[in-house]
Amino acid sequence: MATQGQVITCKAAVAWEPNKPLVIEEVQVAPPQFGEVRVKILYTALCHTDAYTWSGKDPEGLFPCILGHEAAGIVESVGEGVTEVQPGDHVIPCYQAECKECKFCKSGKTNLCGKVRLATGVGVMLTDRQSRFSINGKPIYHFMGTSTFSQYTVVHDVSVAKIDPIAPLDKVCLLGCGVPTGLGAVWNTAKVESGSIVAIFGLGTVGLAVAEGAKAAGASRIIGIDIDTKKFDTAKNFGVTEFINPKDHEKPIQQVIVDLTDGGVDYSFECIGNVSVMRAALECCHKGWGTSVIVGVAASGQEISTRPFQLVTGRVWKGTAFGGFKSRSQVPWLVEKYLKKEIKVDEYITHNMTLPDINKAFDLMHDGVCLRVVLSMH
Amino acid sequence: MATQGQVITCKAAVAWEPNKPLVIEEVQVAPPQFGEVRVKILYTALCHTDAYTWSGKDPEGLFPCILGHEAAGIVESVGEGVTEVQPGDHVIPCYQAECKECKFCKSGKTNLCGKVRLATGVGVMLTDRQSRFSINGKPIYHFMGTSTFSQYTVVHDVSVAKIDPIAPLDKVCLLGCGVPTGLGAVWNTAKVESGSIVAIFGLGTVGLAVAEGAKAAGASRIIGIDIDTKKFDTAKNFGVTEFINPKDHEKPIQQVIVDLTDGGVDYSFECIGNVSVMRAALECCHKGWGTSVIVGVAASGQEISTRPFQLVTGRVWKGTAFGGFKSRSQVPWLVEKYLKKEIKVDEYITHNMTLPDINKAFDLMHDGVCLRVVLSMH
Ligand SMILES: NC(=O)c1ccc[n+]([C@@H]2O[C@H](COP(=O)([O-])OP(=O)(O)OC[C@H]3O[C@@H](n4cnc5c(N)ncnc54)[C@H](O)[C@@H]3O)[C@@H](O)[C@H]2O)c1
Ligand SMILES: NC(=O)c1ccc[n+]([C@@H]2O[C@H](COP(=O)([O-])OP(=O)(O)OC[C@H]3O[C@@H](n4cnc5c(N)ncnc54)[C@H](O)[C@@H]3O)[C@@H](O)[C@H]2O)c1
Ligand SMILES: [Zn+2]
Ligand SMILES: [Zn+2]
Ligand SMILES: [Zn+2]
Ligand SMILES: [Zn+2]
Repeated sequence: MATQGQVITCKAAVAWEPNKPLVIEEVQVAPPQFGEVRVKILYTALCHTDAYTWSGKDPEGLFPCILGHEAAGIVESVGEGVTEVQPGDHVIPCYQAECKECKFCKSGKTNLCGKVRLATGVGVMLTDRQSRFSINGKPIYHFMGTSTFSQYTVVHDVSVAKIDPIAPLDKVCLLGCGVPTGLGAVWNTAKVESGSIVAIFGLGTVGLAVAEGAKAAGASRIIGIDIDTKKFDTAKNFGVTEFINPKDHEKPIQQVIVDLTDGGVDYSFECIGNVSVMRAALECCHKGWGTSVIVGVAASGQEISTRPFQLVTGRVWKGTAFGGFKSRSQVPWLVEKYLKKEIKVDEYITHNMTLPDINKAFDLMHDGVCLRVVLSMH
Repeated sequence: MATQGQVITCKAAVAWEPNKPLVIEEVQVAPPQFGEVRVKILYTALCHTDAYTWSGKDPEGLFPCILGHEAAGIVESVGEGVTEVQPGDHVIPCYQAECKECKFCKSGKTNLCGKVRLATGVGVMLTDRQSRFSINGKPIYHFMGTSTFSQYTVVHDVSVAKIDPIAPLDKVCLLGCGVPTGLGAVWNTAKVESGSIVAIFGLGTVGLAVAEGAKAAGASRIIGIDIDTKKFDTAKNFGVTEFINPKDHEKPIQQVIVDLTDGGVDYSFECIGNVSVMRAALECCHKGWGTSVIVGVAASGQEISTRPFQLVTGRVWKGTAFGGFKSRSQVPWLVEKYLKKEIKVDEYITHNMTLPDINKAFDLMHDGVCLRVVLSMH
């Protein structure tokens, strides 16, 4: 391509300061270095982790930065040493890298990868600890190794999954975060079996994907818990069979659920990010085997607690990041499942907007009126 | 036997009040009713759960009662409907019942059993909600469904494991609690694999049994943590390969262990009952897969806590009761393993005493100078 090896100037939404509206700026995107890939982002969705860092509550947040991590695009050019993708490939950027070589990747026990974390954690690229984004020479930090709120971004080669070019990028961009997180929490982390009773706290995109995963796994009852009753209608279409609004009950929600289920659920999932709900999710599990998976991300510094007796009597407390999916290996498989209509994606998209509307899109998210908003980037 | 169907008067150590010395009394032990077994206790060991309830800190403790739950004896007589044991059988009383019929027993997921818990939890027998122990007509409560600090006790048929009569009862009495708890925490609850790095907090009987179990499972490093350095010499014989005294370090013990192990251990076990150590045990686990098992029993009302990020990044928090062993099915198997010299038992016994010495035996336990004290009951 004509742009290869050149700095590209394009539009991006820049978070200059915590909690101040994002500003659409012309940014310079440097060419990819060794082991890096420059991607033309076509569609990006918004996720709570973007909003969290933007809010300034994330102590590791760095500003100015370009947020965004749930997206799809096309490889524009690659740096030296990149063998697994080439210009023109359709890709999904992956905030969970997969190098296939580090202690984590080789353990066979986790989808976390240690290869680029030290760099992505501080908003730079691994080779030279520099950012590839700048505005008139002033560097702008990367975010989660993805920074998809830019028309072009640079990612590490271990952070990009090559997918079937037939897949509609305006849909499969969702396979970059929320939907796989929910499905994988059920399939990989909890390993829900057929006949299980499942409780889901929070019926946003992640909670609905948990419901979808649980239905596919053959769960016999899927209990959805949300304080926003607007969520209940949609949730039926994702497999939720019963609804509870904690506000309708005097008793603690864990007790309500234990009473409804002859002793508790087999699996529970916290998909909100609220530490007291995390406790309730553990404590509504059945003695002897109930397993609770924390999916929601709590604000920094907050702690979960319970009586140790809850665990001594057989409950298990776990968590999940990106649903335990190995990104580069399994995101393409999820795309195939979508193409075969084995998993939903379109149904999570409630709004389509464009990059200049990004602040309005975040307002929709904060008001809780949307599931996923997809932004067209060009 | 001549005593069958008769009330037996025998000696027992009675806890009249919390925290007051046990008193050796003549107690009346009623004949076993439907589904009950009267056992002549020959040997009993002391465990911390006895001391905990005795101390008055257990809000469910009932007085006066007869404590004791780690013992071995011979069936004296059986009530109607008892088919699996008969007079003369050698048995180990089991505070974790196993009915093979309830939701728990049939789940295939836990060793807990629901059959007699409502009765044993309140110090009585299931059939008539009465105690079989009395002194001059005044009932004395049962404890944990076992009450082995009596020369004769009555237990439910689902709470007694028939064992090989060749086994020395003065040794295998330990297979009623502490040793199986430690071995099973490793084999059943954590499922430690060969090559794993293991940390054990607390090197009493339970911690040493964890070490023995981990060694048998092929652990590559077994790190023992105790604030009492006297424990280190003995611990070597049980497989511990490295020792840490938290008092020798400025840094939190979890950080010391993470530094020593390139990121943390694969499995950790809390064998003390201290909620801050439980947190350290979780947090010294390796990101991505480290699993921590709570074995120690904390005082009532105390809570564990941590940041949810510890779980979201792949650590798992579990607990174990009786090491996950199904009592009636698996205690006999543990006895066989002992007879084949595949597991240690004798090595945990540091003192042999007699029933009248029971208060002195508890003093030894509180001073931390013993592993297990075995009392001869007749
Ligand atoms: N672990 C991971 O890898 C990962 C990945 C993506 C997202 N997340 C996290 O998952 C969480 C959910 O994401 P989402 O996009 O579905 O969010 P969302 O805001 O769309 O959904 C949250 C739902 O929880 C409900 N809720 C809020 N407080 C509640 C309470 N006290 N009781 C019951 N319901 C309550 C809301 O009404 C809403 O429907 C967020 O914390 C997000 O950061 C985690
Ligand atoms: N879950 C179960 O089914 C089960 C069964 C039996 C026993 N237990 C519990 O297991 C625990 C251990 O039993 P045990 O008989 O081995 O007890 P023990 O008292 O013999 O051993 C405890 C050890 O912990 C050490 N210790 C105390 N505080 C410490 C600290 N802060 N840091 C490091 N080490 C410390 C002591 O020096 C001692 O060596 C008890 O809480 C007991 O109630 C649980
Ligand atoms: Zn996300
Ligand atoms: Zn890796
Ligand atoms: Zn015990
Ligand atoms: Zn049972």
